[in-house]
Order: sequence, then structure tokens, then C-alpha cells
Amino acid sequence: MSVQSDLGDLKARLREARDISSSAAVLYWDQTTFMPAGGAAGRGRQLAVLSRLAHESATDPEIGRLLDRLEPYAVSLPPDHDDAALIRVARYDYEINTRVPAEYSERAAKHSSATYAAWVEARPRNDFASLRPMLETTLDLSRELAGFFPGYDHVADPLIDLVDEGMTVARIRPVFNELRQGLTPLVARIAAADQVDDGPVRKHFPQAQQSRFAERVIKAIGYDFERGRLDPTAHPFMTRFAHGDVRITTRTNEDFLAEQLFSTIHEAGHALYEQGTRAKDDGLPLGSGTSAGVHESQSRLWENIVGRSLGFWSHWYPTLQAEFPEQLGNVDLRDFYAAVNRVEPTLIRTDADEVTYNLHVMIRFDLELQLLEGELAVADLPEAWHARYQSDLGVRAPHDRDGVLQDVHWYAGSIGGAFQCYTLGNIIGAQLYDAALCDLPDIPEQIASGDTSSLLEWMSTNVYRVGRRLTPDQLIERVCGGPLDAQPLLRRLTAKFEDLYAL
Amino acid sequence: MSVQSDLGDLKARLREARDISSSAAVLYWDQTTFMPAGGAAGRGRQLAVLSRLAHESATDPEIGRLLDRLEPYAVSLPPDHDDAALIRVARYDYEINTRVPAEYSERAAKHSSATYAAWVEARPRNDFASLRPMLETTLDLSRELAGFFPGYDHVADPLIDLVDEGMTVARIRPVFNELRQGLTPLVARIAAADQVDDGPVRKHFPQAQQSRFAERVIKAIGYDFERGRLDPTAHPFMTRFAHGDVRITTRTNEDFLAEQLFSTIHEAGHALYEQGTRAKDDGLPLGSGTSAGVHESQSRLWENIVGRSLGFWSHWYPTLQAEFPEQLGNVDLRDFYAAVNRVEPTLIRTDADEVTYNLHVMIRFDLELQLLEGELAVADLPEAWHARYQSDLGVRAPHDRDGVLQDVHWYAGSIGGAFQCYTLGNIIGAQLYDAALCDLPDIPEQIASGDTSSLLEWMSTNVYRVGRRLTPDQLIERVCGGPLDAQPLLRRLTAKFEDLYAL
Repeated sequence: MSVQSDLGDLKARLREARDISSSAAVLYWDQTTFMPAGGAAGRGRQLAVLSRLAHESATDPEIGRLLDRLEPYAVSLPPDHDDAALIRVARYDYEINTRVPAEYSERAAKHSSATYAAWVEARPRNDFASLRPMLETTLDLSRELAGFFPGYDHVADPLIDLVDEGMTVARIRPVFNELRQGLTPLVARIAAADQVDDGPVRKHFPQAQQSRFAERVIKAIGYDFERGRLDPTAHPFMTRFAHGDVRITTRTNEDFLAEQLFSTIHEAGHALYEQGTRAKDDGLPLGSGTSAGVHESQSRLWENIVGRSLGFWSHWYPTLQAEFPEQLGNVDLRDFYAAVNRVEPTLIRTDADEVTYNLHVMIRFDLELQLLEGELAVADLPEAWHARYQSDLGVRAPHDRDGVLQDVHWYAGSIGGAFQCYTLGNIIGAQLYDAALCDLPDIPEQIASGDTSSLLEWMSTNVYRVGRRLTPDQLIERVCGGPLDAQPLLRRLTAKFEDLYAL
Repeated sequence: MSVQSDLGDLKARLREARDISSSAAVLYWDQTTFMPAGGAAGRGRQLAVLSRLAHESATDPEIGRLLDRLEPYAVSLPPDHDDAALIRVARYDYEINTRVPAEYSERAAKHSSATYAAWVEARPRNDFASLRPMLETTLDLSRELAGFFPGYDHVADPLIDLVDEGMTVARIRPVFNELRQGLTPLVARIAAADQVDDGPVRKHFPQAQQSRFAERVIKAIGYDFERGRLDPTAHPFMTRFAHGDVRITTRTNEDFLAEQLFSTIHEAGHALYEQGTRAKDDGLPLGSGTSAGVHESQSRLWENIVGRSLGFWSHWYPTLQAEFPEQLGNVDLRDFYAAVNRVEPTLIRTDADEVTYNLHVMIRFDLELQLLEGELAVADLPEAWHARYQSDLGVRAPHDRDGVLQDVHWYAGSIGGAFQCYTLGNIIGAQLYDAALCDLPDIPEQIASGDTSSLLEWMSTNVYRVGRRLTPDQLIERVCGGPLDAQPLLRRLTAKFEDLYAL
């Protein structure tokens, strides 16, 4: 067999496995957007079959043989050669897919489904007790999953690596600690300052107008509707079926303008990343974001660094006022900017502001580690949750539904690896933005004139078109000239909120 | 192995094959409704993979072995026992799926795609010449397909059997001839009578109101929106993903009220059949319509026998007038009824009225047979088309785009088997309706009072819930007490149009 024939065969097999996964993604998207209620049973069967077929296709031993045969070719190439990168990434995926036995995956999937269904029932009743035995099994399953990747330093490391390649507890912990040590005094200074009023965005804003404005904004920042769609769902998400078909979803709260607006920009940020990958990588593992954390860097960058900046609104606010003259006609720009950036220690992560958000995430990250380490029993999790919220944010949930039952993650997947990506995303987003500013200092002025194209082009060149050719660490090192670093985020938040709260 | 374990295994395998096909159907539906333009390339790949996987799953030799092992059990049962029917139908499908080699299917699919793309370009240019060589290959491929089913009397028989089980040229020809001999003088008598005016439905009718009214009508006749959806597409169709998810599509012509209205009722008729199958058959081959012709009997029955009847409009017309007071406020019921039933020999099959429609279909059916028999060369097809239109309908298309290039069927599939189902549907629909009237003579009065529930319940009991447990012939014989028969349709059309045209 020639190298070129093996490579062609490998690509065809990888494309096929991904096309099956993408087909499942279409069915899932349909399920959350347009499927009638009666379709649930059939859809469950169809998704189960496609999921099994995708796994079979991705773990076909012939892929392993092709990768073995191609290894000498790969090592003969410069490391950032496309073929070398493809073989590296395909090997990484193949190892993961083949190390986890199908029997385990099915057992874990069944347990997840059952736990999720139980959580949906138990959460409104604040009934953690009924979920405790299931969560204990989830913890066992999570440790079992880690066990398929022996040689780790911390039991959470393999679970983190599954979504954030190369990250470990030993690397994340000091960076997160540095961030927390910087954020806690900032939160305290803000709490002591004159508070801002979010009344301007807590009026009635009709759905149709909110949607129209959000569409206009994401179109302007570069989301390509010829290669995507925006539809309503209960929980917003981004999904990629192909390079030419990257869809996002949103939801509307008619009594809170910030929800749909920033959630749509957030998902559009994810989509800009996927739409910005190279067309020639379509269907291949190189053609997608390189990790959950780097993906989140883009959603958070467009949502927060761009979308919640004063410059951005100095351009867009008149348009928004024209859309909502009654609600916003008498609210000036600075008050609107303050309203969408109000900082307040609250109970719910997904509603949290830019400053306290990472404190929410780090509480969960630390509790995950303690559970996995055996330092914390599942039975003691609700109280540990309250204790950390009290110490880190100064608030205590009156009920478990806003405490330990708040997020779906532990009740629909593994414990470990679920939360770090959010704060990694904020950290990496700030690092990448600083790097972009270094190359193109005019970006803030351009944003203030309504032009985000330079920033998009810079991200496309340095991040999006790279796809998975670089690991997250390689990407950060190459683009930002150093390792993961909490300081750019801390500097950015400190400067922004010192100004906003006149600290 | 026990019979019950084999049967369970067989059902699981049949369900899986169908779930893969249904997944492909979801992707196809999305492609025609919501997919952005950029998604085409990826979608083509995904559909090709799912189509191959569905075929592999449906032709798994283990299904053949299970069917062999279950044969003694099947013959020990009464023929309409569910298990016997399931094994019979599964065997029928398995034989067809395994007789056609995958290599042939891929070759034919590629040729179809290429021919379809060429037709889309060539039709507006009236360029039959450029398509001729491709159509000659299609004819060869159609004969090759028939060759996988040796022992036929007429080369078209296997192609017809693929969609209308049990039907043959020898059985269809005399029935069609009888129909044509009855229709031709009726058309002549209508042509000699005072013409009716379809001006009332050729005004401007805004899309939103048309859609609202059509939705209301199909909901009233029993289309269940909890288990389906209605969306716009270029070419209307019905598609089933599961018993609980049977969707239809429609298109609007704002300058012709009859198009969306009757096309929506037509597709809803198909959907009532699928929604009316038994829930317990979901995912199994018993749970679907028994043939293309019987399926068409339901779409045509609801569209024409019910939807174009005077009684139906004596109930619905005031509501329609209220929706379009400017356009219809001064048009009385009888004039509206005449307008939506205007008979005129025209060039386009899909726009044809109830009387001439079958003449269009039979022209195509006869030409297909002549091509397959070698009596007609592809090169002579355009002239043969004109000659038959001249003799049967008295019209001649000025251009081939409204002549031989008019329908997509020959340019996107095989020659043979594509058209008979439409006229079979009209014939069978009239037979079934007469049988329903025999049992429930009050149906016309109920329809005139806006209540179609007795008719739906009768169809559900006698046709829909039966699914594929009876072949088309068995169904007609059992329900109508005799074989396929053109007379009920001829009697119905004669009576209706003698009244309408005062013949």
C-alpha cells in the first residue's frame, strides 16, 4: 500500500464516522427545535442506533492499522504539516474511542439517562436525597472511566483531558487559585461601591423585536446565515453538521433583555469558530475547535469582551433604542452599559455576571475534585456546596434546587471534566484578545465604529483556520507567546469594573 | 433458539434497519425545509453514508437466517396472524433488498443524481437532446433492475411490483383501458358544455391566511399536529419518521387558492394513513402503507372525494369567506365549488383536474411500457409524447419543458413503475369510499356538517391499522368485496361532472 492510498483510506473512514455523528447531531437538533411531542420514542431509538454506528465506525480496527502504517510517514514530516497533524489527532481520538469499552459506554449512557430523568423530577422538589444513590454510582462510573487511562497523577486528569486535551489538575489549580485570589477582593470592592441599576433591561421586550435585533448583531459580527440558522430552543447551543452548516439556537426572556441578546452572541461566538475552520478539513477531525476551553474562549470573547464593551454599544445602542423606543428611549448609553454589566453575587451560575461567574465555576471544579479524591462524600455535597457559596460569594441557597441541584452536568454525565472549560475559556479568551490587540491596536476603535472584521480575521487566521492542528497548549504558546495565564483576564476585569463602579 | 427469541431478534434487526432509514428521512426533510444553502455538500455525504448503512442493515444475512428458521412457525399460523404477516412482509422486503446488488444501487443512484442535475439545467432550455443519452442509460438500468427479478411476463412487472406489490402490466392495462374509454367521452361532453369560471380562486390570496386556513382544515379532518408538522417546501411531500412523527410539507401560490389548499389536504391524506397505523407496529415493516397505489388512494380520497365535494364546502365555505372577505365575499358557494372543479384539458399533469388527471398518467404509463418493450426509442419520445397528448387530450405543448421534460420521475429514477400508482390511487380510493358508504350511508351528510370522523374511523379500521398485514390485492378484495375495478371511479366522476356541467 502506498502512503497516499493509506491516507486516502484513512480520511474516507474518518469522514464516514464523523458523517454518522453529524447525522445524529441533525436528529438531536431537530428534537430540540421542531420535533412534535409524539416523536420522542422513535427519536430515542434512532439516536441510540446512530450513536452505536458512529462508535463502531470510529473504532474500526482498520483505522488503527492505517494509523500504524502511517506512523513512519507522520514522523518524517514537520509537526505542523497537515498530514502529521491529521494523523496525530486521529490517533488521539482513536485511542480514546477504543480504550473505553462499548459495554461501559452503554452502561454509563443508560445510567446518565435514568439520572437525568430523575433529576428533572427531583430538582423542583429539592429532593437531593433521592438522587444521592444515583450520584454515588455516577462517581463510581467516573472513576471507572478514568481507570481506562492509567498513568495519571490525579484521577480527574483523564476526565479533563477528554474535553481539554493536555490540561491537568496540577496545571489548572494554581491558575484558578491565582484567579480566585484576584477576583475575591475585586468582588468585595464592588460590593462596597455604589450599586448600578439593571432596571433598564428588566422591562417588557417583545420576542420578535429581540430576535430581529440579535440576528442583526450576530450577522454584523460575521455569523454567516448562508451556512447556518438561528432557531428557538429551551437551552441554547451551537451544533455543527458540516463546514457549510453550523447552527445555533436561542431562547427569549421577554422581561430581561440581556438573556437572549448575550446568549445569542455567545453561541454565535462558538459558531464563528466552526464556520471559520478550513473548508478542506470538513468531515475530518482537524476541522473543528481544538478543545472545550478554547471553544469557550471564543463564545466568551464575543459575548463579553466584545459584546459587553462600552465601545460595542456606542455603535449599537442607537439601533437598539430605535427598536425599543419606549423601553430605552430615555436610558442613556452609560446606564445601559452599566445595566448589562451589573455585578452581584447571586446563586445561579448561568445568570452570573462576568466577575462572579468564574467563582461559581471554580466552586464546582473544586467540589468535583474532592468527590473524586474521596475527600468529600456525595452525602455531604449539599452542605459543602452551601459552605463554599458562603465563603466565596457570601450567599446561601434557600433550597437545593438553586444549590447542588442547579446544574445538569453531574446528573447527565460524569463527575469531573464538566466545568473547568468555562473558566479556561474566560482565561484563554482574554489572552487571545490581548494577543490580537498587540498585533492590531486599533481593534477597540474599530469595534466602537461597528467594525469587528479585523478581530474576526485575526481570530480566523490564528485560531479558527488552525482547527485541531495545534493542541490547546501549542495554540496558546504560539499565539500568546506563553502558557495559560490568569493575569490578562484579571487585568481586563479589574480595569473594566474599576471604571464602571468608579472604584 | 426458541421461536420467541428468534422473533425478538428479527424485530430488533428490522427496527434498526428502519430507524437508519428514518434517520436518513429526517436529514432529507431538513434538507428541503430548513437547511441553509451551504449545507448541501455535507448533507450529500451524510445521506450517502446512511443510505449504505440502511442497506447493509436490511440485507444482513442474519435476517435471512432468522426468516428461514421462522418459516415453519409462520406456516403454522393463520395467514392474518400478526407474526405470519410480519414474517411474510419481512421476507418480501429482504428478497428485494438482497436481489439488487449494492454495486448496482450505487451505480444507479449516481446516474440518477447526475441525470437529475442535468434535467434541472436542461428543462428550462427545452433541451431534450442533451438528456437523451442519459435517458438511454436510465432505460438500460431499468431493464437491468428488472433482470434481478427473473420470471416476469412483462419487463415492467418487477418495477411496478417494487412499489405496487402484486400489480402487473397484464392486470393494470385492461383496467386502465376501461377507465380511458369511460373518461374520453366524458371529457368530450364537458368540452361541449358551458364552461365554468375559475376566476374566483385566481385572485391574490396572502400566504399567511392560506396557511392558517389549510392548517385548520387538515386539523379538522384528523391530522394530528402532536404527531406531525406542516412546513413549506418547493415540492410538497409526506414523510414518516415514526408513528408519533409524520410530517407533511406544502407550498403556496398566492395567485391561485386551490394549489396550497388541495395539496395540503392531499399530503394530509397520506399522513392520516401513516398516523393511523398501529403504534405497536412502529419501526416494523407492518407499520406503514401497503403500497404506493393504496397510499395514493388516501391522498386522493381526502383531496378529491372529500375535499372537492359540494358537501365539504357547504360546511367550510363560510369560514373560507370570512378569511378572504374581499376575494370571496361576493362569490357564492356553487361558483366556488365549480371553480375548484373546473375541467380543462391542459398540458401539466400536476395542475390537472380530477377528470383529465388520469389521462395524463396513462399517457406516461403507456410510454414507459413502449420504451421498456423496445417499441419506442428514447430519441422518438418527444414526438410520441406530443402525439398522445394530441390524441388523448387534444393539446400540444409548444415546448418540451411542458412536454416530455415536464415530470422529474424518469430523470431521477427508473423508467417503469413511476406513474401507475397515481391512477391506481384514484381507482382504489373510489372503491374504498364506496365500500365505506355501503357500511355508513350517512357519511356525505356528516361531511356536509363538517364531521369527517366516521369516514376516518372507517378508514382507520379497514385500511390504516391494517398497515402491510394485507397486500394491496388482499386489502381491496377483503374491503371492497372484489378485485381492482375502474367502475366506481367512472361512476363517481360521471355523476359529479354531469351535475356540475349540467350535462
